[in-house]
Amino acid sequence: MTFAAALTDAHRVFLEDLFGENVSFDKKVLRVYASDAGLVPGEIFAMVRPVDVAQVREFMRWADAETIVVHPRGRGTSLAGGCAPTVPGIVLSTMGLDAIMDISATDFVAEVGPGVCTATLQAECEKRGLMYPPDPASGKATSVGGNVATCAGGLKAVKYGVTRDYVLGCDVVVPGGKLLTFGGCTHKDVVGLDLTRLMVGSEGTLGIITKLTLKLLPKPEASASILVGYPSLDAALLSMGKVFDAGILPSALEFMGETVLEILRETGATPWPETVNSLLLFQVDGSRETVPLEIARLGRQLDDALWRITGVTPEEENAIWAHRRRISAASYVMGPDRIGGDMAVPRGRLLDAVRRFEAIARENGKRLIAFGHAGDGNIHANLHYDASDPDDTERTMKAHHAMDEAVLEFGGSISGEHGGGCLKDVGRQLGKDELALMRAVRAVFDPKGILNPNKGY
Amino acid sequence: MTFAAALTDAHRVFLEDLFGENVSFDKKVLRVYASDAGLVPGEIFAMVRPVDVAQVREFMRWADAETIVVHPRGRGTSLAGGCAPTVPGIVLSTMGLDAIMDISATDFVAEVGPGVCTATLQAECEKRGLMYPPDPASGKATSVGGNVATCAGGLKAVKYGVTRDYVLGCDVVVPGGKLLTFGGCTHKDVVGLDLTRLMVGSEGTLGIITKLTLKLLPKPEASASILVGYPSLDAALLSMGKVFDAGILPSALEFMGETVLEILRETGATPWPETVNSLLLFQVDGSRETVPLEIARLGRQLDDALWRITGVTPEEENAIWAHRRRISAASYVMGPDRIGGDMAVPRGRLLDAVRRFEAIARENGKRLIAFGHAGDGNIHANLHYDASDPDDTERTMKAHHAMDEAVLEFGGSISGEHGGGCLKDVGRQLGKDELALMRAVRAVFDPKGILNPNKGY
Repeated sequence: MTFAAALTDAHRVFLEDLFGENVSFDKKVLRVYASDAGLVPGEIFAMVRPVDVAQVREFMRWADAETIVVHPRGRGTSLAGGCAPTVPGIVLSTMGLDAIMDISATDFVAEVGPGVCTATLQAECEKRGLMYPPDPASGKATSVGGNVATCAGGLKAVKYGVTRDYVLGCDVVVPGGKLLTFGGCTHKDVVGLDLTRLMVGSEGTLGIITKLTLKLLPKPEASASILVGYPSLDAALLSMGKVFDAGILPSALEFMGETVLEILRETGATPWPETVNSLLLFQVDGSRETVPLEIARLGRQLDDALWRITGVTPEEENAIWAHRRRISAASYVMGPDRIGGDMAVPRGRLLDAVRRFEAIARENGKRLIAFGHAGDGNIHANLHYDASDPDDTERTMKAHHAMDEAVLEFGGSISGEHGGGCLKDVGRQLGKDELALMRAVRAVFDPKGILNPNKGY
Repeated sequence: MTFAAALTDAHRVFLEDLFGENVSFDKKVLRVYASDAGLVPGEIFAMVRPVDVAQVREFMRWADAETIVVHPRGRGTSLAGGCAPTVPGIVLSTMGLDAIMDISATDFVAEVGPGVCTATLQAECEKRGLMYPPDPASGKATSVGGNVATCAGGLKAVKYGVTRDYVLGCDVVVPGGKLLTFGGCTHKDVVGLDLTRLMVGSEGTLGIITKLTLKLLPKPEASASILVGYPSLDAALLSMGKVFDAGILPSALEFMGETVLEILRETGATPWPETVNSLLLFQVDGSRETVPLEIARLGRQLDDALWRITGVTPEEENAIWAHRRRISAASYVMGPDRIGGDMAVPRGRLLDAVRRFEAIARENGKRLIAFGHAGDGNIHANLHYDASDPDDTERTMKAHHAMDEAVLEFGGSISGEHGGGCLKDVGRQLGKDELALMRAVRAVFDPKGILNPNKGY
């Protein structure tokens, strides 16, 4: 398909008529929208910010008729280049569709626009004694629509699952302008093919989500966290196994490898002794009565630990989690640029995978920063480098790609939560026939392929 | 598409060569496979029972080339006619693909053939301290493949979700014989379009599932149940709201309406006083220490109850759940034949929906039997009748269909867990454009439409 290579005057007039002040052709503005957190530069003709479904429909009718590429965009936090414009086109920002239409404490359902901030939705739910469990670590910066487009995971996935598990329905405008409704507002619905869940993780390639219906849970009364120190990651992960063996399902379970502890030590105060080289961070939630028992029971499984600190008040928990939250910024001591992995392996292969990644990094003269969602086997395997140094850059990229290869040998996935975007070589993981089938399904929604080309699959 | 109207001698020879003793043309045998628990009669040419993937591939290559209809079938327990042959064809039974290939207590993953019995898988997991949470009430009779094909719900969905939430990957043979692998054995994987979840609930219309990779959880140490009596369903459901308001998420939450209690009283011993006309049945699970506290806390929310009985040992719990399990058989005192609903409504509309269904039944000279998964807003709304009485049958069907209409007015779904099959009028619920899109997606997998025609959507 040949896409429109530029906008005509007539195109510009159409967009101005349709969007008024919510279209921009200003180069300075467009620069913001021509990339995302994955930092792949792109080129765009315009940015539009629809404020209602009618605008989205009319825009998608027109874009399809004119064969103009459309890049749907939430808050642009994709680390995989999910909203980077690899083909010149128009960015459709969902930031104008950010209403919380309803949060029902009787139905346990929220209806929201895709542009609502994840943390805002979580806070509004909590005010009503409800919980929206998907909890990407970047939730303060992300939109719910972006979370749905990537099937975002997050800190609570080990107990509560991922974004997919909380999407009950969605309204979608497909190329050509039709508005479709998938699913609904019941917690169970098995009528028809599950196109709701097909939309989840489709990375903006099937349609523009204009409304989301989300499942909520009652908010647990209380939580508690425990940060536990071990001489090595080996000892830490052995200990983790005992927790699961005891039938405990924590609401969060993070690990931090040896390099992470070095970095934290180097860049701030660390309360653990020098013998501690690896950490596990557990959270449990439940009622005020049961949480103290659960955290004590969990603690009893961790008898190999060298050191521990328990947090039972929100302030104490916050202080504990601050160590985890500090990793991302602190790791820039290892280099001004970063390439990150978010691979997942079968949970029992976590240690083997981290050790292999470390070896790969070493072979390329690099050091691996490994931490992440141990309970899901989901590893953040980051490498820092100096992009102005070609040799460093080459070695870093070589190590990064070799880790993706290694993940597949462990039966893993090269992306556990960020999506394929345009930065992951998903063709290594997906078979030829499977890829062809995905693209054929895509063509049913978007025959001309105008939506977010070259993304995901 | 014109399907083969009969088997030729060459077809029979092909099937005998491929399947040996695992093909049947015997009319008596075929009668068993020519319907399912939905009792819609059909006609089939043969039944084949592949024992390996190679047989499935060769069969699907041949069936597609010969344009012969294929009816995939698990254990035939569909109440919606999901495996009833509406077009003459060949039944493919998955009962020969019933291996449990692996249950990993380190990865928390099971790999199974589609034909394995749900209860068998659950028991094997429990032996290893693991839990496969999807728990359809008919789990002793159903296959996991059938559960996946319908996205079966069940008793634990309120806390643990439905079958979809536990399917990590699957191998699928599509018409033409290609073997495709979707997803994998990691708890998180967002690479490519989510065809794994598209398979879930697709009712055998996209491909033959030959392997399933399932997510497991640690098995909770303990559980407890409480059966609580109220003067009316209104009082019961008001009480239920208080439990959720207190932030309690039970692992099961069933309701039984007034007619159910009459039937139970009429057909056996009932421990509750005559003032009790409606019941709620809760289960909580967790550790041995926390479960007694949780069940006590739950009990404190139920201060409007007239009567209660708590079960903390497996025997006591079993005795409590026996009342719930007795409903299905006992309700035949209302008539020798049954048509059942499994509709879902937004949880807060449960009482309104049941009252409307009762009114519809009354208007047609019938009485409604209503019970089900209150925590999900999932209602079993059954009508009993005498199929040999044309007037009774007509009134019953009229009421049944009117209930489906009413469900949609409540923003509900006409099927919460059984699937559309061939008995549900899904066209009432799904829009014209949505149905067309589903069928176009189907055509990508199965261009000739040989798989389970006229089912689901």
